[in-house]
Parts: sequence; C-alpha cells; structure tokens
Amino acid sequence: MLRRVSASAFSCKSKIDLTLRAMANLNGHKKAMSTATLDVAGVYPPVATPFDSNENIDYKKLEQNFQRWDKIPFRGYVVQGSNGEYAYMSKEERVAMVAWARKRTPKEKLIIAGSGCESTKDTIEMSQKMAAAGADALLVVTPCFYKGGMTNSALSAHFTKVADESPVPVILYSVPANTGLDLDPEVAISLSEHPNIIGMKDSGGDISKIAYIVYKTQASGFQVLAGSASFLFPALAVGCVGGVCALANVLGEACCELQQLATDGKLEQAKQLQHRLIAPNGAVTRRFGIAGLKQAMEWFGFYGGPTRAPLQQLSPENAAILRQIFESNKFL
Amino acid sequence: MLRRVSASAFSCKSKIDLTLRAMANLNGHKKAMSTATLDVAGVYPPVATPFDSNENIDYKKLEQNFQRWDKIPFRGYVVQGSNGEYAYMSKEERVAMVAWARKRTPKEKLIIAGSGCESTKDTIEMSQKMAAAGADALLVVTPCFYKGGMTNSALSAHFTKVADESPVPVILYSVPANTGLDLDPEVAISLSEHPNIIGMKDSGGDISKIAYIVYKTQASGFQVLAGSASFLFPALAVGCVGGVCALANVLGEACCELQQLATDGKLEQAKQLQHRLIAPNGAVTRRFGIAGLKQAMEWFGFYGGPTRAPLQQLSPENAAILRQIFESNKFL
Amino acid sequence: MLRRVSASAFSCKSKIDLTLRAMANLNGHKKAMSTATLDVAGVYPPVATPFDSNENIDYKKLEQNFQRWDKIPFRGYVVQGSNGEYAYMSKEERVAMVAWARKRTPKEKLIIAGSGCESTKDTIEMSQKMAAAGADALLVVTPCFYKGGMTNSALSAHFTKVADESPVPVILYSVPANTGLDLDPEVAISLSEHPNIIGMKDSGGDISKIAYIVYKTQASGFQVLAGSASFLFPALAVGCVGGVCALANVLGEACCELQQLATDGKLEQAKQLQHRLIAPNGAVTRRFGIAGLKQAMEWFGFYGGPTRAPLQQLSPENAAILRQIFESNKFL
Amino acid sequence: MLRRVSASAFSCKSKIDLTLRAMANLNGHKKAMSTATLDVAGVYPPVATPFDSNENIDYKKLEQNFQRWDKIPFRGYVVQGSNGEYAYMSKEERVAMVAWARKRTPKEKLIIAGSGCESTKDTIEMSQKMAAAGADALLVVTPCFYKGGMTNSALSAHFTKVADESPVPVILYSVPANTGLDLDPEVAISLSEHPNIIGMKDSGGDISKIAYIVYKTQASGFQVLAGSASFLFPALAVGCVGGVCALANVLGEACCELQQLATDGKLEQAKQLQHRLIAPNGAVTRRFGIAGLKQAMEWFGFYGGPTRAPLQQLSPENAAILRQIFESNKFL
Repeated sequence: MLRRVSASAFSCKSKIDLTLRAMANLNGHKKAMSTATLDVAGVYPPVATPFDSNENIDYKKLEQNFQRWDKIPFRGYVVQGSNGEYAYMSKEERVAMVAWARKRTPKEKLIIAGSGCESTKDTIEMSQKMAAAGADALLVVTPCFYKGGMTNSALSAHFTKVADESPVPVILYSVPANTGLDLDPEVAISLSEHPNIIGMKDSGGDISKIAYIVYKTQASGFQVLAGSASFLFPALAVGCVGGVCALANVLGEACCELQQLATDGKLEQAKQLQHRLIAPNGAVTRRFGIAGLKQAMEWFGFYGGPTRAPLQQLSPENAAILRQIFESNKFL
Repeated sequence: MLRRVSASAFSCKSKIDLTLRAMANLNGHKKAMSTATLDVAGVYPPVATPFDSNENIDYKKLEQNFQRWDKIPFRGYVVQGSNGEYAYMSKEERVAMVAWARKRTPKEKLIIAGSGCESTKDTIEMSQKMAAAGADALLVVTPCFYKGGMTNSALSAHFTKVADESPVPVILYSVPANTGLDLDPEVAISLSEHPNIIGMKDSGGDISKIAYIVYKTQASGFQVLAGSASFLFPALAVGCVGGVCALANVLGEACCELQQLATDGKLEQAKQLQHRLIAPNGAVTRRFGIAGLKQAMEWFGFYGGPTRAPLQQLSPENAAILRQIFESNKFL
Repeated sequence: MLRRVSASAFSCKSKIDLTLRAMANLNGHKKAMSTATLDVAGVYPPVATPFDSNENIDYKKLEQNFQRWDKIPFRGYVVQGSNGEYAYMSKEERVAMVAWARKRTPKEKLIIAGSGCESTKDTIEMSQKMAAAGADALLVVTPCFYKGGMTNSALSAHFTKVADESPVPVILYSVPANTGLDLDPEVAISLSEHPNIIGMKDSGGDISKIAYIVYKTQASGFQVLAGSASFLFPALAVGCVGGVCALANVLGEACCELQQLATDGKLEQAKQLQHRLIAPNGAVTRRFGIAGLKQAMEWFGFYGGPTRAPLQQLSPENAAILRQIFESNKFL
Repeated sequence: MLRRVSASAFSCKSKIDLTLRAMANLNGHKKAMSTATLDVAGVYPPVATPFDSNENIDYKKLEQNFQRWDKIPFRGYVVQGSNGEYAYMSKEERVAMVAWARKRTPKEKLIIAGSGCESTKDTIEMSQKMAAAGADALLVVTPCFYKGGMTNSALSAHFTKVADESPVPVILYSVPANTGLDLDPEVAISLSEHPNIIGMKDSGGDISKIAYIVYKTQASGFQVLAGSASFLFPALAVGCVGGVCALANVLGEACCELQQLATDGKLEQAKQLQHRLIAPNGAVTRRFGIAGLKQAMEWFGFYGGPTRAPLQQLSPENAAILRQIFESNKFL
C-alpha cells in the first residue's frame, strides 16, 4: 500500500495547468512534449547497483532487494543515480538497468532514471533511450568536468536542450560533493519555467537555498526533492515535496515515516526521528560513501556486495565504526 | 511586552540541574563559576555599531536605535558581534559599548557580548572585562588567523580555558564565512559538557550539522542558536532555541514573529514568512554585508551610517538592488 | 627537424635501467610490460579536437592543423586529453582519433593518449585499445566523480592496476581545475616505483609540490611534465623535463623556444618569454577555456571551430578581450 | 659581511627614478612621503617571537637569536610578521619589538615591520608608530575578517590610504593560508603605481601569478618577494628579488646560499638545494606551523620556546616526524 503525501502542513502546490503553460511556452521549444502533470512527491531510494565478484550487475540480487523495497511506501525508485555508481556504468548498462527496473516494478511506483552525461548530445541520447525504456522522469546532473566552462548560461542551455528533446519530464540534479558545482538557484528558478522541467533534487543541503528555490518557483508547481535523509525534515518544513535519500536503501521505512510524520504535523516525533537519521546517513554518504552504504545494506537483509573499482571496500575497522553508528542510533 | 518562547513543538529542554553538573565537574575546572541556568532562547539582533563621519561610535544614534528595538520582543541583544564590526574596534571600545548597552537596557533583556580574540589570553581578559561590564553571557568566536594550527585539540583547549576563567556563561560561535573555519560538531558536543559553556551560535547554516549538535547535546540542555534569519525556521524545527540574526537589526518584528509562529505550530505561516526573509537576509549578509545592513536600516527608521574602512559604502546601483529585494518581498 | 632537449642545466636524469627495475619488480605485477625506456622530455600540445557544425570530428581540419604542428619541434602530441574535450567523446571516438593520429604522424614524434575513465576497468580497456591503436604512452587522469572515495589508497590501487594491464607506459595526470582532486605527492612518489609508470603531468601548478616530486623520484628517472605554459620555465628550473601546454596548440613555437632557452641556460631570455606567455595561456585555459583556445587558434592559422555543448562559444566581447591579450603580449 | 644580491641572471630592475614618479603622482596623494629608493632584494627571516613560560616576550632569548642571525647574510629582518605570532600581540608589544629590533640591529640590515590590522585606521596608526620606532619598511597584510567585503576596490582603497599616510615604504602582503584571501594580481599591479608601495610578499605560491606580477610591474621597479623557502628558487627564476622565509629562522644560511646560487647562475646546485629545502620548509609552515618552527629552532641552536595559546606545542610524535624530515634532507 502506498501512503502518499497529501494535503498537509508540508504539502506542495500540485503541478497544475502544465498543459496551458506548455502551450503558452511553445515559442522557444522545438517539440511537443509531456504536458501531463507528474506528481513526484515522496521518498525514493537511489538504488544501489549490486555487483557480483566480477563487477557485473547481479540482477538476481537486485530483484531480491526490490522485493523488499516494494513493501515500503516509497513513491518510486531512482535508478542509475550517483549512489547507483552510474559513473562506472557503460551506456548500455545504464539503459538496461532502467528497462529492467521499469519492467519488474508496479506501475504506481515511479522509475526516475539518472540520464546525465558530460555532453549535451550524450545526455539527450541517454534521456531518450531511458524514456524509451520506460523511465517516468529523468534526473539530470550538472555536467562538471570543464568546471570553468559550466557558467550559468552554459548550464541553462544544457538543461533546456535536454528538456526540449526529452519525451518525459526532467528533474534537475545538483550534487556538489561529487561535481564540485552547486547549481545557482537563479538558474534553477529560471529553468522551472520550462514545461518539461518539473523539479530539482538538491543534495548540497544549503537549506536557505532550497527554501529560496521552493519559494520562487511555487507558482509553477516546481517540485524540490531533498537529496539526503540528513536534512529531509527541515527540507519538508520549507516546502520540499520529498527526498531521494541514499539511506533509504537501508532504512527506507524510517525515511518514509519521517515524511509521514512531517506531513501529519507530528513535529516533535519528526524532529526526533530526523535526529536519529543524521549520523547513519552521514556515514553511508560523506564518510564511508557507497562502500559504507553497501555494507550497511547487508546488515538489514539486503544484498550490498562490492563496489566497482576504484571505489574500495570498507576496512574492518571502518565497518565496525559504521555498525556502531547504526547501533547507537538504535537501528541495529 | 516580551513574548517569550515557551513550551511548544519547538521548545528546548531547559538547562536544568546545571548546579549539580557544575559540582560534579569541578575536578578539571579551576574556579567556581556561574551555576545558575541562563535560558537564552529567543531572537537577538547582533547590533550594528553606528559611526559618525569620523568613524567614532555615535552613542546617540545607538540609543535611538535601541529605543526602537526595545519595543520588539527580542530575548536580548548581541553586542560586539561580527555584524557590530568588532574586528575594527579597539579593546576599549568593545568593552565600553557592552557596558553602555547593559546600563541602558532593561534587565529582562540579555546582553550577550562578543569577547572573542585571536589569543586565548586576550579572549580571557576581554571576557572578564565584558562580564565586569555587565554582560550576561559571552559569544566567543573561533580564533582563525593561524588556520593550520586551529586543530580540534587547540580549539577545545581554547574554549575550555576561556570558559574556566569566565565569570559568566560562554556561547561558542562558528562563522565560517568570516573565519574560514567551521567548528567540528564533535568539538562542540564535547565542550557542551563544560558547565560554563551553555550553547552555540552556528552561522554556517549546515542544517544537518546543527540538528546533529542539538541531538547529541540535548541531555545537557545545551542551547543552539541559528546564526542567520535565512534558516531560522528549519533550525527551530530541528531543535534550535532561537537565533542571532543580522536581519533583526532591520526586520526584528518579522524575525520574532517567525519564532513565535514556529513555537505555536503555525507551520504554513512560518514557512511563508521564512520564505520572504531569505532574500533580504542574504542581501544584508552574504551579498552586501554590513554596508548593506546599514543601508537597509536607514529605510526602516534606524540609523545605519557608514562602516569603518576598509569596508566600503554601498554603491547607488547596489543600494537600488538591495531596495528592490526588500520591496519584492513586501517589506518596503 | 626535432630539437630535442638534452644535457643541460635543466636536463633530467634519463630513465635508465628500467629493464632491471622491471625485472626486479615482477613479483607484484601480472604481466610482462614495456621494459624499454621512453624519454618523454619535451613540449606537447594537448591537441584540440576540431568539430564541424554538427559536432562531428572534422579529420580534414585536424590534418591541416597537424601539418602545421609537424613543423614545430614538439616531442609529440597528446591526443584526447582534457583540452581535446575527451569527456565529450564516445569510447569509439577516443580510440579512433588516437589511431588516426598515430597513423599520420612521423614515428619520431610521440603520441600520448588520454585513456582515463572513471572506473578502473574502463580505464584498463581504454588503455589497451589506445595502445593497440598505436599510442606510445598513456596519460591517465585521476578518477574524480566519487571524490569522497578517491582516497590515496583508492588512487594508488587504480593507477597500479591500470599500469599492470597497460601494454605501454603510463603517465599520471593531475588536473585539479577539472577534477577537483590534487594527486597527493606521496602517492605519485610511491607510484613512481612501478616499472610501467614513467612520469606525471601536473596541471595544478603548485611549484613546490612539483619540485618535491621531481626530487623524491629522481633516482627512478620518473619524468614530470608541467601541465601548463604558465609555469613551464619555473617547472623546468626545478627539474621537469617538459610540458603539455594548451597554449602550444596556438603558440607551439614559443613554447618550444622557452624550453630550449631554459635548456641552453639563457635565463634572462627564458624569463622574458615566460612572462609574455602567462596571460595568453591563462586566457585560453582558466579564463576562457577551450572555446578561447579554439578562437585563438583561428587567429594563428589553425582551425578552431566550435566546441561540443554544453561548452559555449566565446561571446564577441570575450573574443575581443582575448585578442587584446595576445596583442598586448606581442603575439598578434 | 653582507653578500648582497647584485646584477645577475636573476637580478631585478632597481627602483629607479622613484623621486620623479613620486613628484608626478602627487595629485592623488595627500602627503609628501618617502621618495628615496629602498632596495629590499635579499633574504629575510620573519622573526619568531620567543616567549617565556608565562607567554611574555623574552628579549634576552631574542637577542641571542639575533646575534646568530646577524652572522648570516640576510638583507634584514621581518619583525612582527605572521610567523612572529603578531595576531596574538598587543599593539604595544608589536611596536615595542620593532623598536627593540631596530635599535639592536646594524643599520645595513633592514627592519621590515608587519603593521597590518583589520581596520584601515588601525593599520595607519600602527604603520606610523612602527615607522617612528625605526622600521625601514612596512609589510601590510590584507585585512580578512569580513571576507565578503574585501573586494578589489576595498583592498585597493585600504592599501592606498595606508601608503598615503605611511612615512616609510609599504610592501603588500598576501598570505592565503592565514587570511583565506589571495590578493588579485591586478590589484597588486595597480597599486605598484603608488610611489610609496615598493613591493609585495606573496606567500600563496602560485608561481604563474608571481611571474605575472613581476612582468606587469617591472617598469616601475616593483619588488616581489617570495613568501616561502619552498619556492624561492623558481620565484627568483621568474624575477623575484628575494624571499621572506619562515625556514630562514632555522636554516638562514641555506636560504641565503640558494639566492646566491641563483644569482650566480649556478642552476643545478640551486635546484638541488631548493629540492632539499622543500620538505623542511613545508614541515615548519603548512604541516606543523609555528610550533614546528620553534621546535626546529631548538635543534639548530636557537631559542624556540612555547607559542602563545591557542597554538599548541608539538606532540613528541610530531616532533619526531619533524626531526626525521630535517635529517633525511641532511640538515641534521
């Protein structure tokens, strides 16, 4: 059963009359595109990609993980996001895993696919292939290798072209810890006018910036998702509609419960749960990264397995520290 | 009338049984020190220091400003904080302004004095003088010039010695935008055990860090204050007890109203007010700094006046931008 | 005619007795690998990749550029480096351009191919394909997307595995402006012991770090290349053996002349030429990036053409600034 | 005996016809000021300030140190620089130590006094007092606490006002590791036109920036000093006239010898000596800071003593590492 986030203290304006806006905006945009609203409010795990000992995707283990996740009231899944080690996947693997996930997942759960590449044309191609593979929406990270050239103008043009050519809605994605770039809020606000750009995932965690983007885009129904369980509750408090949380691979129920508590106005409980999630989340992201995430998954009945190199396995010492963090916060 | 923050969804545990803890902790601490609880919950302006055209402190103008601020339900005033241009003041000026402020201010409003210096011994001396001048508590910024030497160990020792020697309670102060240092949460958590360190002002704005410190120090009644109006509401949501907000020099009533709305559980209104405060706050801090703050004060009936050099006055172009930001958020 | 760098004030120890070291080191390394010394001393342009108006590689234009470059006493060419927009190329394009370059280039000039990918296995595969395509050596950039996981240990393991599996010598590549990572000198020093890792290109420009690496690796004949014309002369002064300089696409003769002057001990002239190169180099790298480089190429008789998106063309205003920089330094 | 740096491969244009320039520039400058050339070429230790066990300046120990330094061919001494812990000194202490140093030091050696304060008026006052105390020139660091306000315009105005009011020549000082600010080369170049600003100490170590400033200011005889022994040789190679080197407190003869080798065109020897100095220099600056510097001084027959708090003493483990660095580079 899917507990959806609905009207509440922390609800978002729905993405209404997008059709009208789309028609009004046809001037600058080459193609007809998705005009229906897609409500993305809710919690998502950015699905960890399981590998066998040869670094190949192990779809059997992935299916086992999904079967457990399916019971959690997620809004859907982010496939081939940063935590899915997409940067280490071939183009074919990225599309295949999206197709696989869409096929095996109940329709009411969204599949949001990470289609970002460094070049605009690769991103367009990847977006179209992932849409064809059934992705409901695309998460498009800021290109970042030529940092000096990634001006506001360049990023605006990039996202606009990708959104113009994408058959399904686009969600902007800013993750400074990986890219070294923090998408300027004014760029996000300006892009929110594009009829095929419906939201943003912000993993930077600057809560003022997040709140400001929510505020300045609320007329258009732009949907902002927290990029981490570490600030999910304050992000909901300032108007985010959900979160894509690495920790949801491990503690999905707690992440969903946090959003529900916030939605229900149970603020003291929300605060307390948020408190307990910060250290475990920090441990499987900033501190120990994907190796930490996969290690923690093992303790909670999921398959974690190895990462692809050059990411390295957790040392026994670090695994002990990680476990202690989950224990001291009463999750183990 | 003083609307104090009280029991509510966002209330803090009061600093109970500090006397007992102080007694229990006497081992490592040289002196008897303040054993009474000081509840610092609430909103404070870090008072801008008015100068005449010769860069001298203009106490007449300051008194005029205070008379208007006195009508706002602030918990008190921060005197000689960063926004008070303390770094440009002589030792004598810093102490004198604290003494002046304490003398002219009703006892129910706290005077929190910024006593941080680069060296430990200067900070101790300044803390003692400010306490003698009537400060209720001291705000002690992280020393920062020898960044490479400001290890966790060095900062712990510094704050411990200062707190040992201070006759009034100490509040830690982390303001990375000025110091280039972000106080490690583990250091803050450890220092929260000191009976004379009662809280922290965090201006960095990493909401996860703030929440984590609240969480790990709640048993001791440690009080965390948001260092900016830009994230006051989410900071209260995760357990902060108030804020020291540059913007409160200008929009003091709105800042207090925001805390009240949060305290009363009026979350939608709190969110909306928070939204409107972000751009004005950003404009008088990050973007235009103290010159922007002083310019904005003029528009709201306060005396702003010049900054001390090398800080420069706002250009007419920037003043126009600043004004537009206040107007578009419906404060002018 | 190839003016080679030879014995001089700034000469490097040659990579002697690599065969012996290779034999002595066979223990940890799976395969026989290149045991012959490869002397890479000299100047290289990291070849800009020319595109037609559809963003396809324009090999005709590239051949025209190469024919002009062939007359300059370069030690060789870096193909598919950062300035070659490799991050925007498909795997097939990257290998094809290396094969093309090797085929059309006289044997006495080296082809150093940029084979770095995010994952270790992709980098190994790319390295092997580029070696098969004729690359004389490989330039392997630090993986960077999962910055938090790119510990010294992870990077050491990555470069070691790549070097183990590569049929031709590997050159480490640190380019913080793009990757956000600065390879730790101790890692480079340790890796210099690997028989198949013969050098490093450092584009970070920390001259102390560069000198330190030269010093600590001189016993093994490790060859350090400056990654920029902006510090080519001081880098040679502290023991680098040459440089890979974006500016050499435009001012190849001047870059080679600078190395020759340094080699010949004509220090005053070297200093003066170095001085004149800094602003033009900064303009086609940090300031205006690849778009600036390609614009400048046009003025010097090369084909520059468009960049791939999201990199953007230079605005007319910026092109005018760029031109003025070349003019005021007497290159136009 | 003073071995002065003279005409050589690395010589600087002398500060000729400053009188004429001063006269020509009188328009914008309020006061007559020093019109004579001051040649600052050479090596300086930024003198460590010795404390007794009560953190008071120990002038006896200081005199002992000076007597040993006097035998080294330094161009002079920097008193109350960063390495002199000036940030922990009172105004009175700062002036007193300058007066003391000038009085006891032979006239042929310069006393350059660090007079920088956060505010412009404090810096002017300190500059005038230090000049009255006999300083030959002043080293003025960039103010840095209100980083956001330290625009190029603000810094230009600051240095201009200070130089206008200073009775002795001013040397700009950029030390990003402490201040978090890197003085823009264009600001330095513009300020080089001021008749009372004769040079700059750059501790950032960006050799391209240093070379660019040398190049653009050479017509005015502006003198650039390397701010570290780690890049003294390459800095001389690109046109610097000397260096202010923390390590010269310990290894003064080696630092002077390096400048002499460079001056004499003995490049291979210069390179080798430079190589050996990098690790010891890094150890007494970036890695172990002033505590490391003072520890090393003890091993070389100087008095080091304690630092002022919050700087902490070196742990025995770190002292052992430090010693090993000096030993492995053959200085112990």
